[in-house]
Amino acid sequence: MARRGPRPGGADTRADILVAAERAFAEQGYDGATVRRIAATAGVDPSMINHHFGGKDELLMAVLELPMDPQPMVAAVLGASPTAPGAALLRRALAAWESGPGQLTIGMLRSSLHRDRTVGLVRQLLERRVLAPIMAEMTVPEAERPWRVSLLATQMLGLIMMRYVIRIEPLASADHDQIVTAVGPTIDRYLQGDVD
Amino acid sequence: MARRGPRPGGADTRADILVAAERAFAEQGYDGATVRRIAATAGVDPSMINHHFGGKDELLMAVLELPMDPQPMVAAVLGASPTAPGAALLRRALAAWESGPGQLTIGMLRSSLHRDRTVGLVRQLLERRVLAPIMAEMTVPEAERPWRVSLLATQMLGLIMMRYVIRIEPLASADHDQIVTAVGPTIDRYLQGDVD
Repeated sequence: MARRGPRPGGADTRADILVAAERAFAEQGYDGATVRRIAATAGVDPSMINHHFGGKDELLMAVLELPMDPQPMVAAVLGASPTAPGAALLRRALAAWESGPGQLTIGMLRSSLHRDRTVGLVRQLLERRVLAPIMAEMTVPEAERPWRVSLLATQMLGLIMMRYVIRIEPLASADHDQIVTAVGPTIDRYLQGDVD
Repeated sequence: MARRGPRPGGADTRADILVAAERAFAEQGYDGATVRRIAATAGVDPSMINHHFGGKDELLMAVLELPMDPQPMVAAVLGASPTAPGAALLRRALAAWESGPGQLTIGMLRSSLHRDRTVGLVRQLLERRVLAPIMAEMTVPEAERPWRVSLLATQMLGLIMMRYVIRIEPLASADHDQIVTAVGPTIDRYLQGDVD
């Protein structure tokens, strides 16, 4: 939807900026995306980006929140307190990563790892939006949760990077069942098995 | 060691270029490092880089080979055909990653993931220099090795990224014993346990 030029701020402006920024970060990466061009795509004045978000870092943070929210998925899988949650968690995670929003999220993750500043944002986002919701649903004693959830994070991130970014075979072409069978028990052990 | 200007090529020139490039890629990343500045640091004419390596991509590839060679470690650990190789492999890998060359390797890996071209180099390097040597030492039937080794790669890469790049706690501060105890059994299962 082309717009003719700047217009006053509002809820709609914020949403338009987010849509434009999401595409810019995914296609051009953090370094390549510019506030000026995002503003132009959204049809707003660049000052609106600072007004609504504060700056490019905060915009990336807001965008990274946008594509997928893992909380409902985590609650659905772990809230039922299954004895082997790994398979269900993986199955849902694979479907989510392979959806449009998931691919955008992986693209943005990938373009955030080479700079300390953006890695800091990724860490905050991961802790607040992924690891905290998982810890909240875990049934093991609270004191064990941070360690278990960081182990879970290693396996999940490694799977994402190797399957979707580096794309080693046969992993990149493996079907979900194969991955769930092989990696599910790892997730089960990290979440509730013997790790000490 | 400062040099006064260009000098003719030779084995020494190649080594000097590699040392300069290693530092440039680690400190400035793939995008920031320039052939011109690497040549200046090495005290050679920029044409010598094309002469010896072909270009910036090939230089990165050559540099990525330089810092650490996993083959002897893999042979030492897996060559003895232990029943639980995960602990020994992890213990050696953690020590290697935390050495100077290991940190350089992680820095270069980190600065290679956001571009398709450099990711392609990482994939080749990983397959040829890490996964192939591991497969050569494995005792399970050959047909199973590519799948097992890609599972191993997911766990190892995720551990590297979460501990050294994204640095989530308590993982980033965990001591080696904790990590070996928690992750060792995962490696054992991926290398020789039930994954189908």
